[in-house]
Amino acid sequence: MIRPPQTAYFRGNWPTPETFTFGYAPHLFRLESGRKLGPVTVAYETYGHLAPDGKNAIYVAHALTGSAHAGDGQQASQEAGWWADLIGPGKAFDTDRYFVVCSNVLGGCYGTTGPASLDPETGVPYAMDFPVITVRDMVRAQKLLLDHLGVKRLAAVSGGSLGAMQALEWAVTFPGYVASVIPIAASERLTPLAIAYNQAGRKAIMNDPDWCQGRYYGRTFPVNGLSLARMIGTITYKSKEAFEERFGRKLAGEETNYYDFFQDFEVESYLNYQGAKLVRRFDANSYLYLTKAMDLHDLSRGYASIQAALRRIESRVLLISISSDLLYPPQEIRGLAVELRRSGVTTEYREIQSPFGHDAFLIEFGQVTAFISQFLSA
Amino acid sequence: MIRPPQTAYFRGNWPTPETFTFGYAPHLFRLESGRKLGPVTVAYETYGHLAPDGKNAIYVAHALTGSAHAGDGQQASQEAGWWADLIGPGKAFDTDRYFVVCSNVLGGCYGTTGPASLDPETGVPYAMDFPVITVRDMVRAQKLLLDHLGVKRLAAVSGGSLGAMQALEWAVTFPGYVASVIPIAASERLTPLAIAYNQAGRKAIMNDPDWCQGRYYGRTFPVNGLSLARMIGTITYKSKEAFEERFGRKLAGEETNYYDFFQDFEVESYLNYQGAKLVRRFDANSYLYLTKAMDLHDLSRGYASIQAALRRIESRVLLISISSDLLYPPQEIRGLAVELRRSGVTTEYREIQSPFGHDAFLIEFGQVTAFISQFLSA
Repeated sequence: MIRPPQTAYFRGNWPTPETFTFGYAPHLFRLESGRKLGPVTVAYETYGHLAPDGKNAIYVAHALTGSAHAGDGQQASQEAGWWADLIGPGKAFDTDRYFVVCSNVLGGCYGTTGPASLDPETGVPYAMDFPVITVRDMVRAQKLLLDHLGVKRLAAVSGGSLGAMQALEWAVTFPGYVASVIPIAASERLTPLAIAYNQAGRKAIMNDPDWCQGRYYGRTFPVNGLSLARMIGTITYKSKEAFEERFGRKLAGEETNYYDFFQDFEVESYLNYQGAKLVRRFDANSYLYLTKAMDLHDLSRGYASIQAALRRIESRVLLISISSDLLYPPQEIRGLAVELRRSGVTTEYREIQSPFGHDAFLIEFGQVTAFISQFLSA
Repeated sequence: MIRPPQTAYFRGNWPTPETFTFGYAPHLFRLESGRKLGPVTVAYETYGHLAPDGKNAIYVAHALTGSAHAGDGQQASQEAGWWADLIGPGKAFDTDRYFVVCSNVLGGCYGTTGPASLDPETGVPYAMDFPVITVRDMVRAQKLLLDHLGVKRLAAVSGGSLGAMQALEWAVTFPGYVASVIPIAASERLTPLAIAYNQAGRKAIMNDPDWCQGRYYGRTFPVNGLSLARMIGTITYKSKEAFEERFGRKLAGEETNYYDFFQDFEVESYLNYQGAKLVRRFDANSYLYLTKAMDLHDLSRGYASIQAALRRIESRVLLISISSDLLYPPQEIRGLAVELRRSGVTTEYREIQSPFGHDAFLIEFGQVTAFISQFLSA
């Protein structure tokens, strides 16, 4: 039996989500790398009801540190999910019409099998024995979940950042199964700049002596390493303007001394806080594996060319970029829109006007709702 | 006696530069913070000859990890300095006309007093007992050096990045002394985004268990920490385009395995290399203190407003930006040009067209030479 990781998830007030387990020996789940993994548990949540024909489902894919908890909590005491503003009756993903599914990605730490899960061969957590997984592996696991739930066809797949990579991979890998995809703030492959930032984050974790080659479970958690990784990530999720507006050059703290080496500026104190917050809820090895999966994101892998991959797509596509995104500037996503149209894919392109950078898909719900509602009702 | 740090400097083939020492007890050097430091040694190099009236000098200020070795080596075996393409007979800083001076900044590790220097009170290196220093402190130490050398007036001060901050601080702090300043790729204060990156770099060092609160001298050097700090810095010195063009998504190494967790992309291998290279030549505590000095860079400090500070300037100013600079986008430097003109300062503005990002002032010598030569001969 695979037990969920002892990390963050169970410390919150979020009830245990549903789980689906597949890939029992000898029918292990074959990964893109050729390695086999199993059994694999996927933690998921659903909102709304599946139509009898199984064709009103929407899959919502989460970003790097997200979870299956995308929508409103089923209990009043429960925190709202990361896209609760978009999922619900009358919202962009209207649960009066659609059956919305979200699951924790393969390699994650919110109930789905990942490096913190127990390796059935050894009885201890996989740690770095966990195989490298790809966005395509995540999507293939999600497909098995949807089959299990009786979903016959997806009306849409959407997500931001890593979630957008999954949406695009869905369109290429299961072309007949997906009516429309709505990727926000990501393109067909990770850029070297984004790989560089991810690498810095991984180094931060692996430099931490408490990381112990990943075997820190039951010992001291690599708090400093994951916290620094998160700080680096957070910088790239924001924009110059957002930092300027929110923090400027103000010093943090009540007693301020400009010449104290350890006196933080507000921006530093904010990043420290973001780092400290993630450490309480996320597994460091999952951070390593999921950033690696992002680095490996490249729709063209296994196809003759990126065009060959894009030509497979049968879905309508709505690409959404964010005006101040440092990681995926609008021009890059506009470039993918051009390429998609050239490949015969019906493609719309919209730009969220926001000073909040890459993170804006978790903030600018008004614009996101307008774009998605219009696209889905077309 | 203050001995130079045991770090990098003496490992190279660069001959010992000249030094000038001041601030002997009881006449210690008073810092902007109010703390006192002394004696203070400044390591410097000069190129060309000082005119009898002492008014043909140009001060060239180095960036974060630079040294006094800006020009051509005096020995054939010696490496060319970081601005050797700009300093020499007939070059932008024409040594047939000008007496060019460059010194290692206060807090540095190339011969000038810094955290690796011995604290005369304890007989061991200052480490984190070294006081916080500011760009203004650096410039005031440089002024004492120039007085010592018999310089009566500076024809120009120039530098890129931290060097540009020094150039601007020169213009505000010693208005009658500087005929013209040429700051490249920096503005009147550090932005919160740049502070955030600096903080991540410092965390990387301070997270390293070998850092030992800065008391690593004579023990194990915090190699992993400084190396990661450099990686983070290097990412910000480049541009998205530069990474894309140079590395794309190519894997590094002869045997490549996409699904090996530790198989690097070329961009990662490049950043590892940059990190490893700096570790051999730079002191980790200097990295902490100099990035802190950058964070504190704010021309308005001590004045009623930024306008009040700028109105002090009597120099002509040539501001140079770099088209692809992530840290100091052209619009920001153009904004300073506007502010300078409003404050009555004769200001020119030029933009280096380059895909190389913040680092371009160490690369695009053709454009830099054209801009500077034209400005100095006007």
